[in-house]
Amino acid sequence: MIDITMIRFNEQGLVPAIIQDVATNEVLMLAYMNQEALEKTLATGVTWFYSRSRNRLWQKGETSGHIQTVKDIYYDCDADTLLIKAEQTGAACHEGTYSCFSRKLGGTAEMKALVDASKVYGQSVSTVLHELYGVI
Amino acid sequence: MIDITMIRFNEQGLVPAIIQDVATNEVLMLAYMNQEALEKTLATGVTWFYSRSRNRLWQKGETSGHIQTVKDIYYDCDADTLLIKAEQTGAACHEGTYSCFSRKLGGTAEMKALVDASKVYGQSVSTVLHELYGVI
Repeated sequence: MIDITMIRFNEQGLVPAIIQDVATNEVLMLAYMNQEALEKTLATGVTWFYSRSRNRLWQKGETSGHIQTVKDIYYDCDADTLLIKAEQTGAACHEGTYSCFSRKLGGTAEMKALVDASKVYGQSVSTVLHELYGVI
Repeated sequence: MIDITMIRFNEQGLVPAIIQDVATNEVLMLAYMNQEALEKTLATGVTWFYSRSRNRLWQKGETSGHIQTVKDIYYDCDADTLLIKAEQTGAACHEGTYSCFSRKLGGTAEMKALVDASKVYGQSVSTVLHELYGVI
């Protein structure tokens, strides 16, 4: 039985959990666990979270099949954040992207610059899309 | 001027920001930003956070010199978490470790096993410490 008594849940009884792909080190998502979600994660070896909007526990991938198999769980110096290294089956994001962090602040400006450039230089749409993909 | 109006600060006016080393992809820490901290981060190119305990803005490294130079800021599909890729000067953690996530849940059991092994096999303290360092 792994001791979790050092973990400091916040005033809502939650702790943020960062999920990182153990193979690539990419950060996939952040979600919240209450004590029961953390205990179920430890007991089952796959990630469980607490949904603040739906007010219930949920297993990541329970409907999509895109489960996260836990390899290691770290906690920070304040013991109020978890870092979970996991194997991701399929996509982490419900939008179908590998990571939930697919949007860059200021990214639209860069994309706009590329689109404007295509007007100026007459690049093909596919070239612009390829560059946009690089930016994203 | 980078648009941040899509960012959803929580009921305390805060958004969690994951700091990731842009060179190694290691997750260094998680701290919270209010709108002013995010704006100062964008304006200065180094990370600023809001301290919930001290109730004020602080610049990471303002006393230690261990600043974080921002390279990219991503936000997630809910726009309620930031992922900041940064160059870390020195150590991210106030405890002097490279990352704040230096403790593993269940890790004490592994360390205890190593210490027990040293008693059995008569390893030197430095060997055990070296192995402990590897585990940590």
